[in-house]
Amino acid sequence: MTIETIILASHSIDRKALLLRIKIPFKIIPSNISETHYKEKIKNPYILVQKLAKEKALAVEQKVLKENKNSLIIAADTVVVLGQDIMGKAQDDMEAFSILQKLMGRSHLLITGMAVLKLGSNRLIVDYDETEVTFLNLNDEEIWDYIKTREWKGRAGAYSIRERASLFIESIKGSYSNVLGLPVQKLYAILKEEFNVNLFKYNI
Amino acid sequence: MTIETIILASHSIDRKALLLRIKIPFKIIPSNISETHYKEKIKNPYILVQKLAKEKALAVEQKVLKENKNSLIIAADTVVVLGQDIMGKAQDDMEAFSILQKLMGRSHLLITGMAVLKLGSNRLIVDYDETEVTFLNLNDEEIWDYIKTREWKGRAGAYSIRERASLFIESIKGSYSNVLGLPVQKLYAILKEEFNVNLFKYNI
Repeated sequence: MTIETIILASHSIDRKALLLRIKIPFKIIPSNISETHYKEKIKNPYILVQKLAKEKALAVEQKVLKENKNSLIIAADTVVVLGQDIMGKAQDDMEAFSILQKLMGRSHLLITGMAVLKLGSNRLIVDYDETEVTFLNLNDEEIWDYIKTREWKGRAGAYSIRERASLFIESIKGSYSNVLGLPVQKLYAILKEEFNVNLFKYNI
Repeated sequence: MTIETIILASHSIDRKALLLRIKIPFKIIPSNISETHYKEKIKNPYILVQKLAKEKALAVEQKVLKENKNSLIIAADTVVVLGQDIMGKAQDDMEAFSILQKLMGRSHLLITGMAVLKLGSNRLIVDYDETEVTFLNLNDEEIWDYIKTREWKGRAGAYSIRERASLFIESIKGSYSNVLGLPVQKLYAILKEEFNVNLFKYNI
């Protein structure tokens, strides 16, 4: 199948950076759906992230119905789960500190839901991936050092492994790209098996 | 301790990219030591990578003896180990194919030796880190698709997780930055504990 346009339904800079690194052409059209309603209603993180990814893909489909039919929409939603708690993005320094302090010296799960939709078709694949992430045990002063970098902004769990959080991520278990919010090894397999698209054939 | 210059004793683009992402100022002075001698003599990969990292750091120390004394040299060496075989960099397409074919659909170890040396002192710390990397089971045609990207060039094990190899890396277990040839979470801890240097305090 020839896909002429890949649409990333996200304004996450980490997801954008990932697609740039695997050198496929794409454009960004965020969904701007309101997530609050779903987050209040759905307490199971696996169901939540897949529901949100699907809703984002469907919302972007509505936005671009007149586009070329040979387009794929990729949407995703990521949460951090520690025990029973689902952690999203921090709104300010204090919330970022509170989240990071809880995550230090232990392991949490990073769960991403992903939806892939072929424009104007009934073809919609929804899946998820999860990675266990273990942090070093930074003290409060070091956490504040990190918060001052502002890199926690807009990131689920208030960190990004792509930047300075790599200094305190002791280990991960699972997909690396999933920790950045888009499991590209899963995307590769879904596109190959379900859409007959080979991501290696692009080369920008 | 105030460190005025950090010297990366490596011309690896992945190591350079890592230090850029954690936003510390550094300059690159490769050691250019001949590795063949050590690789023939030392068959234990853990001893080999630590020996090579140490020799690289010492060689660069000789090059820059007249530099500011407040300099740190960081050197590293990475190998891929599958069973009893140590795999380095491929020299051509066929060797890259042969290495990647062996790695597909199974797990291997990525081992990095790292040396940190304070210029003009007797302070030299050598350590290592290892990460288990599991590949999807790509077929020969897909391996050739990857080889055509040229991204295998100059990389231990003929791949880089930073680029399109992320499409077929199913999972990792351990440090992500180690897979790129420099375990920065270990570097952070060594600099803090052994050299009293806080990597968060840099901000370029």
